[in-house]
Amino acid sequence: MISFASDYLEGAHPAVLDALVRTNLEQLSGYGTDAYCESAKKKIRDACGCPEAEVFFVAGGTQTNQLVISTVLRGFEGVIAAKTGHISVHEAGAIEFTGHKVMELPSREGKLDADAVRDYISGFYADENHEHMPFPGMVYISYPTEYGTLYSRRELEALHAVCRDYSIPLFVDGARLGYGLASRECDVTLPELARLCEVFYIGGTKVGALCGEAVVFCGMPAPEHFVTLTKQHGAMLAKGRLIGVQFDALFTGGLYFEIGRRAIEMTEKLKAVLRGKGLPFFIDSPTNQQFVILKNSKLDELKDKVGFSYWEKYDDSSTVVRFATSWATTDEQLEYLEIVL
Amino acid sequence: MISFASDYLEGAHPAVLDALVRTNLEQLSGYGTDAYCESAKKKIRDACGCPEAEVFFVAGGTQTNQLVISTVLRGFEGVIAAKTGHISVHEAGAIEFTGHKVMELPSREGKLDADAVRDYISGFYADENHEHMPFPGMVYISYPTEYGTLYSRRELEALHAVCRDYSIPLFVDGARLGYGLASRECDVTLPELARLCEVFYIGGTKVGALCGEAVVFCGMPAPEHFVTLTKQHGAMLAKGRLIGVQFDALFTGGLYFEIGRRAIEMTEKLKAVLRGKGLPFFIDSPTNQQFVILKNSKLDELKDKVGFSYWEKYDDSSTVVRFATSWATTDEQLEYLEIVL
Amino acid sequence: MISFASDYLEGAHPAVLDALVRTNLEQLSGYGTDAYCESAKKKIRDACGCPEAEVFFVAGGTQTNQLVISTVLRGFEGVIAAKTGHISVHEAGAIEFTGHKVMELPSREGKLDADAVRDYISGFYADENHEHMPFPGMVYISYPTEYGTLYSRRELEALHAVCRDYSIPLFVDGARLGYGLASRECDVTLPELARLCEVFYIGGTKVGALCGEAVVFCGMPAPEHFVTLTKQHGAMLAKGRLIGVQFDALFTGGLYFEIGRRAIEMTEKLKAVLRGKGLPFFIDSPTNQQFVILKNSKLDELKDKVGFSYWEKYDDSSTVVRFATSWATTDEQLEYLEIVL
Amino acid sequence: MISFASDYLEGAHPAVLDALVRTNLEQLSGYGTDAYCESAKKKIRDACGCPEAEVFFVAGGTQTNQLVISTVLRGFEGVIAAKTGHISVHEAGAIEFTGHKVMELPSREGKLDADAVRDYISGFYADENHEHMPFPGMVYISYPTEYGTLYSRRELEALHAVCRDYSIPLFVDGARLGYGLASRECDVTLPELARLCEVFYIGGTKVGALCGEAVVFCGMPAPEHFVTLTKQHGAMLAKGRLIGVQFDALFTGGLYFEIGRRAIEMTEKLKAVLRGKGLPFFIDSPTNQQFVILKNSKLDELKDKVGFSYWEKYDDSSTVVRFATSWATTDEQLEYLEIVL
Repeated sequence: MISFASDYLEGAHPAVLDALVRTNLEQLSGYGTDAYCESAKKKIRDACGCPEAEVFFVAGGTQTNQLVISTVLRGFEGVIAAKTGHISVHEAGAIEFTGHKVMELPSREGKLDADAVRDYISGFYADENHEHMPFPGMVYISYPTEYGTLYSRRELEALHAVCRDYSIPLFVDGARLGYGLASRECDVTLPELARLCEVFYIGGTKVGALCGEAVVFCGMPAPEHFVTLTKQHGAMLAKGRLIGVQFDALFTGGLYFEIGRRAIEMTEKLKAVLRGKGLPFFIDSPTNQQFVILKNSKLDELKDKVGFSYWEKYDDSSTVVRFATSWATTDEQLEYLEIVL
Repeated sequence: MISFASDYLEGAHPAVLDALVRTNLEQLSGYGTDAYCESAKKKIRDACGCPEAEVFFVAGGTQTNQLVISTVLRGFEGVIAAKTGHISVHEAGAIEFTGHKVMELPSREGKLDADAVRDYISGFYADENHEHMPFPGMVYISYPTEYGTLYSRRELEALHAVCRDYSIPLFVDGARLGYGLASRECDVTLPELARLCEVFYIGGTKVGALCGEAVVFCGMPAPEHFVTLTKQHGAMLAKGRLIGVQFDALFTGGLYFEIGRRAIEMTEKLKAVLRGKGLPFFIDSPTNQQFVILKNSKLDELKDKVGFSYWEKYDDSSTVVRFATSWATTDEQLEYLEIVL
Repeated sequence: MISFASDYLEGAHPAVLDALVRTNLEQLSGYGTDAYCESAKKKIRDACGCPEAEVFFVAGGTQTNQLVISTVLRGFEGVIAAKTGHISVHEAGAIEFTGHKVMELPSREGKLDADAVRDYISGFYADENHEHMPFPGMVYISYPTEYGTLYSRRELEALHAVCRDYSIPLFVDGARLGYGLASRECDVTLPELARLCEVFYIGGTKVGALCGEAVVFCGMPAPEHFVTLTKQHGAMLAKGRLIGVQFDALFTGGLYFEIGRRAIEMTEKLKAVLRGKGLPFFIDSPTNQQFVILKNSKLDELKDKVGFSYWEKYDDSSTVVRFATSWATTDEQLEYLEIVL
Repeated sequence: MISFASDYLEGAHPAVLDALVRTNLEQLSGYGTDAYCESAKKKIRDACGCPEAEVFFVAGGTQTNQLVISTVLRGFEGVIAAKTGHISVHEAGAIEFTGHKVMELPSREGKLDADAVRDYISGFYADENHEHMPFPGMVYISYPTEYGTLYSRRELEALHAVCRDYSIPLFVDGARLGYGLASRECDVTLPELARLCEVFYIGGTKVGALCGEAVVFCGMPAPEHFVTLTKQHGAMLAKGRLIGVQFDALFTGGLYFEIGRRAIEMTEKLKAVLRGKGLPFFIDSPTNQQFVILKNSKLDELKDKVGFSYWEKYDDSSTVVRFATSWATTDEQLEYLEIVL
């Protein structure tokens, strides 16, 4: 069965896999100290225009969010996130597990509003009892969001201004960054994004790698002894090369960006198919995840023919579902979708 | 200056203090194993009509919430609470500190709605991705609430029914339980309350003691090795007698209930004073905390004359403030308030 | 039955209790912001000769150790302690509960050896894999130790020198500090002790108070937002006055030191009684806890006549037991002991 | 430069890598729900002779230890381990990070002694104060140990008997299990090992995989909602196939065992080389890690010629170093070693 359920259905982009094959028998030192990790870090710093950035590789997204947030926050601080943010909803309480509150603010189409964040923080400091409350210590956003939407440059600037005013870092979860940067609606470049936050991560798992995310501390130093903290969180691979080699391939010859562009092209075609079938869009997403509303009867009929993801209940007779493209999506798959829909 | 800022302005009720003085030189074993602790536990079980209940003493309210919630919840669970609940707002993230999410639901006058809780939990289990989310593992309410309001018996029954349907405990924070039970609007007795939840605590600190809360596991066994867990949380006093003697006094001759009645009588007088001065009530509270809206100019004028608590911003020119009574409130204090208001 | 089982068998020293009674009806602000807390802090700073020290009050010893250690340590650090230290053995894992390792070093008569600490830390940094290990971030000692022994000034200086060489704080658990300072073998004053460590606490629970310990950050600033962290750990009393009033009394007119002296006088008499009965001492303790070896048959015979504490197995036929004095010990009690032994 | 520094110098065994290449474009569901994970689990259950076992895949060893130990232990429990155990020394405090104490017992050649464990636990329960101490809740051993040594069947039976007597699980860290099972000194089979413990893991990272360990709950049920707990610990890969495909290959046609045998053959040759050069062995290891004592002058001379691992200081002029073989070790590499040594 052909599936559009997610952007992590296949293994690695062929060029990435090829790099793993090619380097397989090289003897390399462990724990991320090998030459491919070094090379990948350099290429990422170059691509971000941040020669001073500190780059680290982690295996997965939840792990990255947990590691970065819990080591950047101080004991008395929590992290502000959209109520629909990944850390608020779908990480099984991974942030709270490390002792910190996720301060959930209402979101619009998956996005945090800079004014709402400012109101929250200024309200916190205005409250005479605020010493009995967890302090806002970071703002977390995802780019693209969990609903596929993008912050405009202006929105990012506004959020970053709030963070700077209160001297707290802005952290951008870029699990699908490649698909965001390639979107027609994206109005920032990677170097610009890096200047609009203190720390972000470049998602590999969903953008061509078998696993792996690259954390980039671009506007703040990494927490002291981050390697030890990574080990302590269980987030360090003995064969760090596994991620280093993949990111080295992704950032060679612009592959990471090419993967994004290709998926977005396929998304445009996917949107045309969905639109052509008269399916209402739940949200106007400019990236590789598309959310449409299916009648439950239609959903039941389709689910043995094509893969898609349950997202959320829409109403008693309808459900929001997700169709996603990736680097691996083909024209043939879309043609099949058009037939079965 | 006379103050109505809170119900913990004075030390202990004279009869409680007297018990401490009277027993001071008795040699008693440590860590809550003394005869006064035993006696107090027996009296509490009697007052609750729960001969099988397990009773423990803890020094303060936040500590009690932290200890009970973190030891009753399993690792994959969080606790449902009102967005205005004490654990959501004013405990500095003490629950998250132990690794668990506080699942904040909207509240009305400080109260959780049973239907909203049921919708949340049923929605959780209906979500196909719920294994990637923290499980609802307990419902926390306060009685009275942080806004002085009370759940009716019917409301408690409805909440308890939801909890039973999903086999999770209902935990009642009774930091001001004495003032709730004595309210004219209260339609449950202490034994009835004990049957409507699995665990609750009887607040001492705000109801006549220098410190101390009594946790009552009435509808579930206490977590295994609760004594060890209490020690591990830093919540065990070497001189456990300090709390045992006080609760023994509070539950001798109905003192705990008498304290509640007296404070509620004073509250009625307080409300008359506030109403007489034309101050709008922010909420209709039937217990010992009263919330009125003060113009900021009035607030500035008053603050050197009488004590009250800042609660929250009402609008740009007004503020919600709290006036509270306790066992220690006197007619003279209320007369003074009438003069200065 | 008369007991020498511990130094926390009675309530408060009469002068301390009297202060609680005298101030009972004063209206005081909550959470340690009252005038008695302020006054007590000032008196403690004066007694320590540290006008700049930050002083905080916490209810109990385990809580104090947990709060101080977990908020001073950084995420990648553990605390060095004697294998027999209170945090290593008898706090139910309270330090590990907060995420930090207790690095247990062998001890001699309850004491850490400065050279052993230096070897441990220098060995850590010499290890090429030390980034995969928790960093030594603090040294914890107790004064007196759990075996009643005292570090000499020279030993304290040596330990402090190691800590300074590695820029980590020395933390002194002074649960029984009053009994240590009053010992004939003590060769430091309170101000000298305060200069030989970065942070310590002055025990109240075992030295005349109903509860309460005073944390003194004398050689380092308190962790940022320590009040919020205290609340988050469940370690803040609403009626902070309870501890403030007691410490104010303890540090008025030298009462704290007088309590120590009195207990040590009684200890000398106790030692004479034990020695007179030919009981072998397990350790040569110069403070208020005395450890003797009892034949198990003798132990069984005595245990219904006089109170003492089981300490540890000595051999198959003998047990180490503890007899302790305190401010409350009387000549009559010692005469009774002489009769029943 | 040729290196014997560890058994994780190369990528994956060619057959494992080939499986990743072959399946790369198959669309598979995420988070370990794919057919290769299922197939691999079935093959592992078969190989262990445990048709009822629950099997889970985790990316790395520290993460596995952290996840298993913290979710199996109850709040009041710690884990017993050898002082030289991986969780005691080289996991950066990952166990304590989750709130549990590692109870370190002396070890002999990396091994825990069953009698010492029994004495520790029986001493714990005999201690009248044990409710103030963390409870022993699990025994952790590694097979082979960190020093390459193996427990005999009799030693495993003795340890397991202690665990059963106290109703606590025995957990075996099998990071290098394949090299242990293939050793000439090994006197247990995989099914026998599975019956001698409650839970263990089969190491992939060091035995032919790019990453991945297989946790096998063979003598106890997995902790409830282990999937959610795995997500919460940041230990779940979106592309769970990455580990499933690899373990499916490792347990097809006995590859896992073949890898072990091959490495052990190479170890025998390695030992002959080291012995031939007159290097003293620090320990008599029957598995793929060999520890020899090098004069520091020799160490300096060698370190630019061949790779090996610093292990620990032996004395002022000598150092213990490790040479390891793996599935990837070749005769040519050993010939080179013989030349340069």
